[in-house]
Amino acid sequence: MKESNNLNYVAPNNEGKIDFINTYDLEEMARNIIPTGGYGYISSGAGDLWTLEQNIAAFNHKLIVPRVLADIEKPDMSTTVFGDDISLPIIMAPVASHGLAHVNGEVATAKGVAASKTIFTISSYANKSFKEISAAGNGAPQWFQFYMSKDNGINRAILDEAKSNGVKSIVLTADATIGGNREMDKRTGFVFPLGMPIVAAYQSGVGQNMDAVYGSSKQALSPRDVEFIADYSGLPVFVKGIQCATDAHAAIESGAGGVWVSNHGGRQVDGGRPAFDSLKEVADAVNKRVPVVFDSGVRRGTHVFKAIAEGADLVAIGRPVIYSLALGGSQGVNQVFDFFKNELAKTMQLAGTQTIEDIKKTTLSPYPWS
Amino acid sequence: MKESNNLNYVAPNNEGKIDFINTYDLEEMARNIIPTGGYGYISSGAGDLWTLEQNIAAFNHKLIVPRVLADIEKPDMSTTVFGDDISLPIIMAPVASHGLAHVNGEVATAKGVAASKTIFTISSYANKSFKEISAAGNGAPQWFQFYMSKDNGINRAILDEAKSNGVKSIVLTADATIGGNREMDKRTGFVFPLGMPIVAAYQSGVGQNMDAVYGSSKQALSPRDVEFIADYSGLPVFVKGIQCATDAHAAIESGAGGVWVSNHGGRQVDGGRPAFDSLKEVADAVNKRVPVVFDSGVRRGTHVFKAIAEGADLVAIGRPVIYSLALGGSQGVNQVFDFFKNELAKTMQLAGTQTIEDIKKTTLSPYPWS
Amino acid sequence: MKESNNLNYVAPNNEGKIDFINTYDLEEMARNIIPTGGYGYISSGAGDLWTLEQNIAAFNHKLIVPRVLADIEKPDMSTTVFGDDISLPIIMAPVASHGLAHVNGEVATAKGVAASKTIFTISSYANKSFKEISAAGNGAPQWFQFYMSKDNGINRAILDEAKSNGVKSIVLTADATIGGNREMDKRTGFVFPLGMPIVAAYQSGVGQNMDAVYGSSKQALSPRDVEFIADYSGLPVFVKGIQCATDAHAAIESGAGGVWVSNHGGRQVDGGRPAFDSLKEVADAVNKRVPVVFDSGVRRGTHVFKAIAEGADLVAIGRPVIYSLALGGSQGVNQVFDFFKNELAKTMQLAGTQTIEDIKKTTLSPYPWS
Amino acid sequence: MKESNNLNYVAPNNEGKIDFINTYDLEEMARNIIPTGGYGYISSGAGDLWTLEQNIAAFNHKLIVPRVLADIEKPDMSTTVFGDDISLPIIMAPVASHGLAHVNGEVATAKGVAASKTIFTISSYANKSFKEISAAGNGAPQWFQFYMSKDNGINRAILDEAKSNGVKSIVLTADATIGGNREMDKRTGFVFPLGMPIVAAYQSGVGQNMDAVYGSSKQALSPRDVEFIADYSGLPVFVKGIQCATDAHAAIESGAGGVWVSNHGGRQVDGGRPAFDSLKEVADAVNKRVPVVFDSGVRRGTHVFKAIAEGADLVAIGRPVIYSLALGGSQGVNQVFDFFKNELAKTMQLAGTQTIEDIKKTTLSPYPWS
Repeated sequence: MKESNNLNYVAPNNEGKIDFINTYDLEEMARNIIPTGGYGYISSGAGDLWTLEQNIAAFNHKLIVPRVLADIEKPDMSTTVFGDDISLPIIMAPVASHGLAHVNGEVATAKGVAASKTIFTISSYANKSFKEISAAGNGAPQWFQFYMSKDNGINRAILDEAKSNGVKSIVLTADATIGGNREMDKRTGFVFPLGMPIVAAYQSGVGQNMDAVYGSSKQALSPRDVEFIADYSGLPVFVKGIQCATDAHAAIESGAGGVWVSNHGGRQVDGGRPAFDSLKEVADAVNKRVPVVFDSGVRRGTHVFKAIAEGADLVAIGRPVIYSLALGGSQGVNQVFDFFKNELAKTMQLAGTQTIEDIKKTTLSPYPWS
Repeated sequence: MKESNNLNYVAPNNEGKIDFINTYDLEEMARNIIPTGGYGYISSGAGDLWTLEQNIAAFNHKLIVPRVLADIEKPDMSTTVFGDDISLPIIMAPVASHGLAHVNGEVATAKGVAASKTIFTISSYANKSFKEISAAGNGAPQWFQFYMSKDNGINRAILDEAKSNGVKSIVLTADATIGGNREMDKRTGFVFPLGMPIVAAYQSGVGQNMDAVYGSSKQALSPRDVEFIADYSGLPVFVKGIQCATDAHAAIESGAGGVWVSNHGGRQVDGGRPAFDSLKEVADAVNKRVPVVFDSGVRRGTHVFKAIAEGADLVAIGRPVIYSLALGGSQGVNQVFDFFKNELAKTMQLAGTQTIEDIKKTTLSPYPWS
Repeated sequence: MKESNNLNYVAPNNEGKIDFINTYDLEEMARNIIPTGGYGYISSGAGDLWTLEQNIAAFNHKLIVPRVLADIEKPDMSTTVFGDDISLPIIMAPVASHGLAHVNGEVATAKGVAASKTIFTISSYANKSFKEISAAGNGAPQWFQFYMSKDNGINRAILDEAKSNGVKSIVLTADATIGGNREMDKRTGFVFPLGMPIVAAYQSGVGQNMDAVYGSSKQALSPRDVEFIADYSGLPVFVKGIQCATDAHAAIESGAGGVWVSNHGGRQVDGGRPAFDSLKEVADAVNKRVPVVFDSGVRRGTHVFKAIAEGADLVAIGRPVIYSLALGGSQGVNQVFDFFKNELAKTMQLAGTQTIEDIKKTTLSPYPWS
Repeated sequence: MKESNNLNYVAPNNEGKIDFINTYDLEEMARNIIPTGGYGYISSGAGDLWTLEQNIAAFNHKLIVPRVLADIEKPDMSTTVFGDDISLPIIMAPVASHGLAHVNGEVATAKGVAASKTIFTISSYANKSFKEISAAGNGAPQWFQFYMSKDNGINRAILDEAKSNGVKSIVLTADATIGGNREMDKRTGFVFPLGMPIVAAYQSGVGQNMDAVYGSSKQALSPRDVEFIADYSGLPVFVKGIQCATDAHAAIESGAGGVWVSNHGGRQVDGGRPAFDSLKEVADAVNKRVPVVFDSGVRRGTHVFKAIAEGADLVAIGRPVIYSLALGGSQGVNQVFDFFKNELAKTMQLAGTQTIEDIKKTTLSPYPWS
């Protein structure tokens, strides 16, 4: 299964409408067009993939109780974060190396996300520059996910460039100070085939495996790093990867302007708690002090509804967008947001919720059998 | 898989005795004779079909505790609702477009249901008129399931016609103000091939997909609609689709004469609570003020027993009847009611319950392992 | 699959040592040599077979906690019931029509059970007479399972004959006043091919299906029937099929000398509680007033251990014995008791229990995950 | 499947680097090179293998909650037991007859374990002598697992030899006074093909099945045996196979210097509690009075992390080492410890734990759904 050399990596170059019914279709179709090593890197996770699979299954640990006679019509999905209005509470999660899925990489994704009138989160390990991604964003808000260098001089330079390109928030990924045990990547012999211009000052990416890439960035993250980023950038800082109340309190106390609940899509600690099962504990701890973003395992509009009901303000999606990017470029990306939007709208109507705030007032029903 | 044009839809035209052992046999046999799009529409549900499948599995969340030495012989299954005596506590649920399963549509079904001495619930989206269905009903009680028009003039006219054809109760379906995310229908490209005479004043049905049909009816249902129907018709009004105590109280307070617990057979909100798991909460809230009907997932007489033990007065069945209609016309419909009746009778005998009231006094045993 | 006429039924005629490792092997091998209708009748159960399958799975709802340093060597499995010493706490359950599995029917089984120095329970629907079975029993204790006639004159005559052949206890099966919904029997068109001499005064069995056979016996059993049998026979009377505390109390109050926990091997009420899950409730209610026998789902010596730990005094096995009867006649029957005895002995040693009384003092550990 | 004579047993003779990703790979590859009877003996367990399989699944009954901003870098896995420093908290469990997997048997294993700078536990049923194993151990600490003779003279001689070869602790296996019901061994007709020099004074092993081998050793173990070994040897004595608080207290009161939680890899009592589910109860009872070792079901570094979080001081691994021994000799053994070490290091980093003591302060999150 090993690819002796995936530096000759040829990514898809599709642009146009995808014929699909749901995100599982996208995954199946994308498997056929993304090169093996790239597809493995994108789709797989840590260890036995148990946490990855439970991330999705966990949404059935709590169930929606449909409501009737609630006088609902044409639910309103718009919301606001840090003063920016967006058309739906679903944003693009940071994902490394979109170039694995499409020759235009983050430029195509950012364009599709902007067409969906929502937020694109730029990964430190993007294959395109801030400038290129910003230009593609068409004025829609963009955030920047930061893997810190061990050198704060480099960190300041990266933050300077992010700000000069208009990013509205910094997302400090704190749950990936090293890579998880990604066995699929070992099986395929995956190395990153493309450069990572944003972090070029501390690593190239090209020809390196994931452990090497993560190894180049800073391991010993602490509350002081949150303070540093917040102070230096003046932007709201999300701490991403928070999975318990204690860490939520600590992050806010160190100056975080947002809490991002995630287990990195099941890519880091297998045998760790499904992200959805951590959400309520964290959201209760945050207690509306700062916005809560949730990701990991979101494949349906019903999942978005449930995450918001459990306390998320925004829900981020990753893999489904990358699959749609491979299959349909920026238009595909726009379509996948429409898929989520349509199912969320149906769910809101049938659950008796006119607005996002109404969803937050909803209580899910525990389900011990799933 | 898409059918470019299912307006040339040819429904089965069977009449006679079916050779079957249980309702799963019926489903398997019906799959072979009902055209793909029609079968998909009838059998499938929302999203991942999780709620649809859990509807059936949920009956094993609570178990029957058989009783002995209870002096039982020939249990009596008869019961009464709104003054009408019926031979068993099992009635026909409202199901759209029986013409998908049989050329004689609701006329054949109503005849079979009448032969079983129980209640037929006429769907707004029936392919036959009130007059035709009423004539086939042979004097057995019929109820009318109402999808309201946005125009109350039309609503009054439909109610007038229902009453003039002798319906005894109006069933306001409140859990389907829009259609669920029916992915199977998208895969087959299903559109309704037949007219819907009862609601012809506000939609035709022919050539429209489900979203279009639901879209023509009223979305913003509220307690005022219950009041309107009850006041105008003078008939007892069920609110159908109630899944929690709060909605049960609200429905009764707005004048509902009955509460119908259902999740629309798993066709609306996937990731919603299995209907059986909602039943006790609702029945306890109703507290015998009005009759409680239950549907969704009922495939066996043991399921009927359990639903009554949890608080249902009547249990409605849908898909199994439609399969039997396709396979054996009115005689098939009669047979499927006999199947349920026989298994219910055995269960009553072995559970030490002589009457339907005895079942209601029974307590099921919780089962956390299923 | 239907057999138009199984009156030409040809049962196996094996006698000799079986090569098997466990009872699942026996089931698989027996399937190949017992005629389809007979095998279906023996092996199958009610409805979806859910309760039948859960009967076995339920043993993993509670787990053995092995004990060490307990100074155990050569555990003693002997026990006593109604003054009879038996070599192990495992007895033969009543099973209808052993002639389906072996031409020598109950004569071969009784001989094998006697060789195992334990109790044989004669079914009312045996294919051999009291006299034949008694002669084969070689002095080992025998009990008689009674399906009552609607006519007490006939009942007295049957009890007279039972007593004159030395039976030590009457087992009133109270959970089968009618047959369960045995769908396999319908699929194979099964009718009993052989006569039932013990109950010949009220039915023949030959050519009748199970519903007809059960229909000939008395349906409306009550505490008065327990009193009648106890008074007339002067023997201890088990009530078999008790699954809750209330029925245990009622049985003892009506004069029962024993309580037999069983769900008839999952053959009566599908969706009913697995028998093992009912055992502790019943045994606690009995509180040592009378002996408790347990059956349903027992396939291993570890199951026997668990049942005794939950309160059973004796454990009865059925299907595995019938399979061994088909495969090896009386010698096969003896072997299957040895299988259970060996595994029970190992389990007692490793659980730190020297005697059957020690097992009763053991507490199992609940296991919510199985 | 039976091997008429496995005395012509030919074990693998590999030495060198194994190409594997995880321990499941090792199992699959080893199955192809170890003779059937030997592989069956090593890999299988008691009864239905339920406890064996649940041993692994049970690690998902409690989940890791990843922690962020914890200032972790290069976690320190070293620990100390009885004054010996080892490089990681993972040691080699006692396993009988390594000669089944490799011609050099325990000599190769001990060499590989020593290269991993951790403890090798010598089984009484080793195929090599104390002298040979000690020589291969290269100064790394070795412990001796003791199956006692019924003759204390022999026991003293064995302990004398153990001590003269430098073992640092005696591990009294108390959960295997007889063998479990190992059905696979019956199916293959397995007998031990090789001599067992350490216990040659009371049995040879060659040509005997497992029941015979266990039968030669002492069955009636009691606290007096712990006292005897501790007094005579002057070494710390582990009691191995403890699965509940009561036995932990009893072992320590009889002089045990360590408690070893194990269910013998699911080889003894099927339907017994998964070992991981017993760990916390035992560790809480021990309350740091003596070291706690844990084994049974450990296949990943995440399992090691969880066992330590639940109270283990050391975690022992068995089958994965034997597979690696078969595939790569001493080098393979070293590699499998590296596999565990690497995954443990990743898990410590991502769970916010710098040291083994930090892991012990961690609380896992219960997971009722797995």
